Amino acid sequence: MSQSNRPETEAVPARRKFLNTAALAGLAGVVGCTEKAAPAAAPAAAPAASAATSSAASGIHLKPGELDSYYGLWSGGHNGDVRVLGMPSGRELLRIPCFRPDALVGWGITNESLDVMGRNAEGGPLYNVADTHHLHASYKDGNYDGRYAWVNDKLNSRIARIRLDYFVCDKITTLPNVQGFHGIFPDKADPVDPAINYTTRVFCGAEFSIPLPNDGTDANVPEKYRSLFTCVDAETMEVRWQVLIDGNCDLTATSYDGKLAATNQYNVEMGVHYEDMMSAERDACLFFNIARIEEAVKAGKFTTYGTSKVPVVDGTQAANKDPLTALTGYVSVPKNPHGVNASPDGKYFICAGKLSPTTTTIELSKVLDWFDGKLQNIDDSIVAEVEVGLGPLHTAFDGRGNAYTTLFLDSQMVKWNVEKAIAYHNGDKTAEYIIDRLDVHYQPGHTNATQSETKAADGKYLAVGCKFSKDRFLPVGPFHPENEQIVDISGDKMVLLADHPVRGEPHDFIIFKRDIIKTKQVYDLDESPLAIKDPKESGVFRDGKKVTVKITSQAPAFSMREFTLKKGDEVTLILTNLDKIEDLTHGFAIPKYNIQFIINPLETKSVTFVADKPGVFWAYCSTFCHALHLEMRTRMIVEA
Amino acid sequence: MSQSNRPETEAVPARRKFLNTAALAGLAGVVGCTEKAAPAAAPAAAPAASAATSSAASGIHLKPGELDSYYGLWSGGHNGDVRVLGMPSGRELLRIPCFRPDALVGWGITNESLDVMGRNAEGGPLYNVADTHHLHASYKDGNYDGRYAWVNDKLNSRIARIRLDYFVCDKITTLPNVQGFHGIFPDKADPVDPAINYTTRVFCGAEFSIPLPNDGTDANVPEKYRSLFTCVDAETMEVRWQVLIDGNCDLTATSYDGKLAATNQYNVEMGVHYEDMMSAERDACLFFNIARIEEAVKAGKFTTYGTSKVPVVDGTQAANKDPLTALTGYVSVPKNPHGVNASPDGKYFICAGKLSPTTTTIELSKVLDWFDGKLQNIDDSIVAEVEVGLGPLHTAFDGRGNAYTTLFLDSQMVKWNVEKAIAYHNGDKTAEYIIDRLDVHYQPGHTNATQSETKAADGKYLAVGCKFSKDRFLPVGPFHPENEQIVDISGDKMVLLADHPVRGEPHDFIIFKRDIIKTKQVYDLDESPLAIKDPKESGVFRDGKKVTVKITSQAPAFSMREFTLKKGDEVTLILTNLDKIEDLTHGFAIPKYNIQFIINPLETKSVTFVADKPGVFWAYCSTFCHALHLEMRTRMIVEA
Repeated sequence: MSQSNRPETEAVPARRKFLNTAALAGLAGVVGCTEKAAPAAAPAAAPAASAATSSAASGIHLKPGELDSYYGLWSGGHNGDVRVLGMPSGRELLRIPCFRPDALVGWGITNESLDVMGRNAEGGPLYNVADTHHLHASYKDGNYDGRYAWVNDKLNSRIARIRLDYFVCDKITTLPNVQGFHGIFPDKADPVDPAINYTTRVFCGAEFSIPLPNDGTDANVPEKYRSLFTCVDAETMEVRWQVLIDGNCDLTATSYDGKLAATNQYNVEMGVHYEDMMSAERDACLFFNIARIEEAVKAGKFTTYGTSKVPVVDGTQAANKDPLTALTGYVSVPKNPHGVNASPDGKYFICAGKLSPTTTTIELSKVLDWFDGKLQNIDDSIVAEVEVGLGPLHTAFDGRGNAYTTLFLDSQMVKWNVEKAIAYHNGDKTAEYIIDRLDVHYQPGHTNATQSETKAADGKYLAVGCKFSKDRFLPVGPFHPENEQIVDISGDKMVLLADHPVRGEPHDFIIFKRDIIKTKQVYDLDESPLAIKDPKESGVFRDGKKVTVKITSQAPAFSMREFTLKKGDEVTLILTNLDKIEDLTHGFAIPKYNIQFIINPLETKSVTFVADKPGVFWAYCSTFCHALHLEMRTRMIVEA
Repeated sequence: MSQSNRPETEAVPARRKFLNTAALAGLAGVVGCTEKAAPAAAPAAAPAASAATSSAASGIHLKPGELDSYYGLWSGGHNGDVRVLGMPSGRELLRIPCFRPDALVGWGITNESLDVMGRNAEGGPLYNVADTHHLHASYKDGNYDGRYAWVNDKLNSRIARIRLDYFVCDKITTLPNVQGFHGIFPDKADPVDPAINYTTRVFCGAEFSIPLPNDGTDANVPEKYRSLFTCVDAETMEVRWQVLIDGNCDLTATSYDGKLAATNQYNVEMGVHYEDMMSAERDACLFFNIARIEEAVKAGKFTTYGTSKVPVVDGTQAANKDPLTALTGYVSVPKNPHGVNASPDGKYFICAGKLSPTTTTIELSKVLDWFDGKLQNIDDSIVAEVEVGLGPLHTAFDGRGNAYTTLFLDSQMVKWNVEKAIAYHNGDKTAEYIIDRLDVHYQPGHTNATQSETKAADGKYLAVGCKFSKDRFLPVGPFHPENEQIVDISGDKMVLLADHPVRGEPHDFIIFKRDIIKTKQVYDLDESPLAIKDPKESGVFRDGKKVTVKITSQAPAFSMREFTLKKGDEVTLILTNLDKIEDLTHGFAIPKYNIQFIINPLETKSVTFVADKPGVFWAYCSTFCHALHLEMRTRMIVEA
């Protein structure tokens, strides 16, 4: 550790000591991989209780009716959805269902949502579970443009797109040939056409190596195990191409000029047990030359696997020995890195060490030099490799040259200066690159700052996703919330402002200025071809056993007060909400028929079901809409 | 309106005016049912922007690490779950899955959760949607005792119980013979045995009348439509008995002495269209004499319907004309009441008028007098019926004699004094029962105060569930959050402290002191008969095609690093988390197999599936647990 850069250790509350010990259980001999690893129970920085100053904190405690100044988009972890927060208050404004059903809005119930999710053999949603990790949004001119966000499903290797006008998921794509799709990042420009200064591709890194094809035949042949890096088209959401690689993928980053994407690799060993996965002293940050890959695809230099038609180019080291033609370049970084983040000045990618107490700063112009034959050893693109603390995972930026890295084992945020770290790495041992440390509570994973991953990084607030909350909230039984902490980074010292509990596991998030988003509050009737534009079009339309029910809602009534079906009818019910006042959402719930969904102003949705239970079923408005909301019902009569 | 009791009208922001107009759309001619209805666009009280004082607000803005002083338990609406909040900060600490699947914890995926939820024909959860409205907790000596909470599912007429040690749902019961089960309330004592000074029954009111039995035959015979009031045993969760009634049920309340339960009725007309439902000038608050009902059941004076064996006694007016033997008593209250709440002094039930601008205060001792033949007309139990504002829905209490009623149409809270209202009703027109009004944002439904529904009501904070948020938060597309507002009620004037967005529809909630709850943070291995107590017991145990996989977790590894199955195996996988450190939760996710669940410290869970897809599947820990969390996997090999 760079002890000279650490502030004096202060009195440590007993619960921190316990926590650090707990987090290290089972890790004996692992973090001790550098000689000077600090003792586990000696975190620095001021005790949290006195950390929040009233002046800084007042900014995040909004008065009733005051609006937040930033949006936050958070992945929902194995909730399988996306969270929308107001920042800096940390208030959750919306959850957007993506990969798994959602009882509130009827995601997985309506035909429209099933069209996005995909259907299983019984016609229900393809999957009921998911695991979202990383969320990033579309760019233009190096800043977010408010069009789209994308989020991954690690569990079933799916990518979902969110429309940021209606704040809904509109497309889901399954990646072929991979398992454990983890890192995701949109490009920020086209590598070739300077007019395309906005996102047109999304890059996806797969973590788990599997036999190709994965049909159960080569399960015990280690050399058959492979991982791929995938490019998805931002507009069509089709998979454009994949790259076969050595080692695995973890997180993903992209350069501002569109020329490079990268993934950190924590398992170059291709181990299947964790001891094997960390046997090598160094792993890698793997760079992709996007223009060359797309030229290779265009030139037909690809293969395909199994039934997938996606072109796969060869990005292995053996096939890319000549830098002048290489599609990929492997930069060596210390042991099991986690997290690769692009600095807002466009110059660097920074890998955090996880099992190494270091961060590695890679200069992108030098990587391009290597691809151009101007740099002999690609590892010479490393301009800093400095110690920052135990368990570094992810890095955020303030736009003033400083980086903020989560230290999982130290339960700290460390603020360090990139140029000073480079100077220190270059031999200037007087360069005090560690600026500040702040205790967080506890075991931080992801972090991000306002506008951090854009050219407009403004260094106002930092959010820290602490994986453990321990004693920070009232106890609620065995399953603890995680703790999102909000930190003021506008001054030299970090100031902890607030703790926010959150249902696991939010993972990654982005925070950006509110004026970037222009939402639509009311649907356009023409968004749905099924829209019923006039209540007079309502009715029960029969074609043998196939029945279409058309109905509209206008508070406090549905257009039909009752409708009659016959047992065994195959029913499609279409509902248009003709209320056009903002916030006047209705719901439609049918007892015993497993149907409930909401319809926003001027929105249309449909459900399909078999009328298999005779009787009277009061379908009712499930979303409070009006003083006569309870009375807003329609009687579905199913004749025996 | 009692104009003399209203403070002077101040300048009204334009958005409030718009909102009130919008809320009244479609209601023309409805709220005008009393002569003196106030104009819709003239709310009183101070503008919200200046409402929060820094001294009052500082109490709810906790410093990092500070704990809340109250728990809040909130129903999750058509999220189908229960929310646990820290109060007064309003931070959400947990969501407890009940009626619908939950991707995060694997509710609806594990065998243990399916045992609680019930299974459909394919073995999946019985229902994927739900609609929770009202949540209440078990009592002892007139205060909560921290054992259980119960919540209803209006959509499928189910009641769920929450264990308040582990904060999990442990039982779900479906009510027979009813539809639209809405109001719910536990009793607070036994009506006969004074030693039973705690909850042993939960009462459930059904809103929708249906033909009995509901088999599709009498759908168009109005006189066959009936509603029932149900009693569920608090311990066994079995349905004890039901009462056939005239009219419908809405909310439910119980007396502190255990003798009376009541439900407000908004549709004594038994109308099927909303115009019919509000044709009568007065509806009712229907009282149940619990001891007499249970005597009747014991005496065999009951019937049953269809396949249900639940005894149903006759509580209709025609069968209960003699007060001395009556099981039920119908107290007349104005038009379409909503909400019935018990005052903490044990004396009164208060019905809110909804379509009448009044609250009706009923003295319980007089209702008992009527059952004892000491009061000739049961309506003489009404001791106050006073105007409070437009659209009164629900009432909370401060333990100092004041009531706080939500005014849906006025978008206000009104604070009024119960004894002064009684004096006013008795002819003292100088009694200024309206104490204060506060604008809320907007259209409040439920409200509750700290400890309000107990004898320990302490009058510190009030929460208001505003159904519309309109412009109070950053826009997130067409689906707005609702707005939970927190109000300081410790002084004479109500002070608005904070806005909290919430995903619809939370409906009802309770707030109580934190020392009432004693949670368990770590499971007992013996909670599950399947627990694997030693990693050495791990393995794959085959009985023909039936395969049991036993596996344990201890960070950063599973007890088996791989296991092999054959295609077509019927697999039950049992996982015990042998980590016993608080907050050290693991997850278990199998790609493509639709399986993901979490296991808390020393918890055991199981899943059953058919190994129908050959290949290699990296089952991984999905809940961040350790620095080597990403490396914590086991390889499931399914041989073709």
